[in-house]
Amino acid sequence: MRLALVQTAPRMLEPRANLESALALMEPLAADVYLLPELCFSGYTFDRKEEVAATAEPAGEGEVFDALAAFARERQAYVCWGFPERAGERFYNSASLVGPDGHVGTYRKVHLFSRETLFFSPGDAPAPVYDLPFGRVGLMICFDWFFPEMARSLALRGAELLLHPANLVLPHCPQAMITRSLENRIFSATCDRVGTETNGATTHRFIGSSQVVSPRGELLARLGREQQETAVVEFDLAAARSKRLGEYNDLFGDRRPNFYALASR
Amino acid sequence: MRLALVQTAPRMLEPRANLESALALMEPLAADVYLLPELCFSGYTFDRKEEVAATAEPAGEGEVFDALAAFARERQAYVCWGFPERAGERFYNSASLVGPDGHVGTYRKVHLFSRETLFFSPGDAPAPVYDLPFGRVGLMICFDWFFPEMARSLALRGAELLLHPANLVLPHCPQAMITRSLENRIFSATCDRVGTETNGATTHRFIGSSQVVSPRGELLARLGREQQETAVVEFDLAAARSKRLGEYNDLFGDRRPNFYALASR
Repeated sequence: MRLALVQTAPRMLEPRANLESALALMEPLAADVYLLPELCFSGYTFDRKEEVAATAEPAGEGEVFDALAAFARERQAYVCWGFPERAGERFYNSASLVGPDGHVGTYRKVHLFSRETLFFSPGDAPAPVYDLPFGRVGLMICFDWFFPEMARSLALRGAELLLHPANLVLPHCPQAMITRSLENRIFSATCDRVGTETNGATTHRFIGSSQVVSPRGELLARLGREQQETAVVEFDLAAARSKRLGEYNDLFGDRRPNFYALASR
Repeated sequence: MRLALVQTAPRMLEPRANLESALALMEPLAADVYLLPELCFSGYTFDRKEEVAATAEPAGEGEVFDALAAFARERQAYVCWGFPERAGERFYNSASLVGPDGHVGTYRKVHLFSRETLFFSPGDAPAPVYDLPFGRVGLMICFDWFFPEMARSLALRGAELLLHPANLVLPHCPQAMITRSLENRIFSATCDRVGTETNGATTHRFIGSSQVVSPRGELLARLGREQQETAVVEFDLAAARSKRLGEYNDLFGDRRPNFYALASR
């Protein structure tokens, strides 16, 4: 399969311009999955709930969804992106996957970071795993990387590739995702944004560094820290199916859950 | 507290010479905990079970234990090291902790790596956490790093510092232990060996790179890849007690165990 990292530089609260700009980056790329960052059309640095409301869409509906669904249908491909999801009175920091036949599913971020907690409700269901023609993909969003249980849970439920839209402001995630791939013997694709965003009293500087990692912890691609940039990486998800590590070990078979006492302090 | 990394270069099946050589490295160092590698007096590359039997000691007994217990008593300090443990007819790849008042406890490695499975029984209990005068320490051994549940379980049970004797032959552990410290907001100390060891048809080349990592993922020390070497690192385990990450997050409070579905494939 071919995965396109689409590392964008969205402008705050300009979803239509951001959508046009992302589609212009995606247009020349030939891929089976196009992966975009977290909250990549609305912008990230919300200051008031009204700004979330103004840019939110219900899962599987809305202007952004329709444009990406049309792209997916035309290309016979999948697109994964982060957006503010409207669900009744609530908003979630969500990521959707759309394919040739329409909406595959939407994941609501379980671990909200920092001021996201002021604007979004935490996700209300486990992260999903989807069976696609080229293999099984799991979704997680940005700060979910910090919790090893997330990637582990997705891998134990069969995910061979993590699609991981992000808006990274801390330096550690790109290296930590190498550990997530290694420890679960899966591919991981993190798509971050670049640029600096100020709204109200808050400024965020994003680190780019979007990347794809193999099940053996090899960096198959890593983009720069400053620029809008894309890469198409080709790999075979079959490499994530065996958890064998040499002649004597199997990473999932060797787990000893009875000894992973989790009693809280 | 002050922790001494004692990165040695043991010779296969020469426990007495290896002990003398380690004590000579430890002698000039002033520390509260002296951390040594896995299987650091027997050597690592066993070819026959008789070799394990010839170098094994029961937990809390034997020539190696007695010498390190005497050192701990004299220095009013703790020593942690890896050794082949004899328990009736079985052998474990174990690590002991001894302090001023004698044997604190012994951990039997839960995740055996590669040909270790030919000579050792897998550990039969969770990894331990000990309450010491300067804070709480958890024990894990080498390949345990690959399983995120190990460090997580130790941290959730209160460990503020991981003592991690190792014999590293793969390149990934030093970087991955930075992730282990970050994701659990704890100190970790990994003590590896150096050198090349051949026995029978098997050769291992060890990567050194012993290190101490802070709860924020800072490398407080990292030794070289080739030489016997020591370092004493001073830090305060209080820094591992709060799991706060900024104003809005608490790494343990934010966990969502109901959503960490672990159903096997």
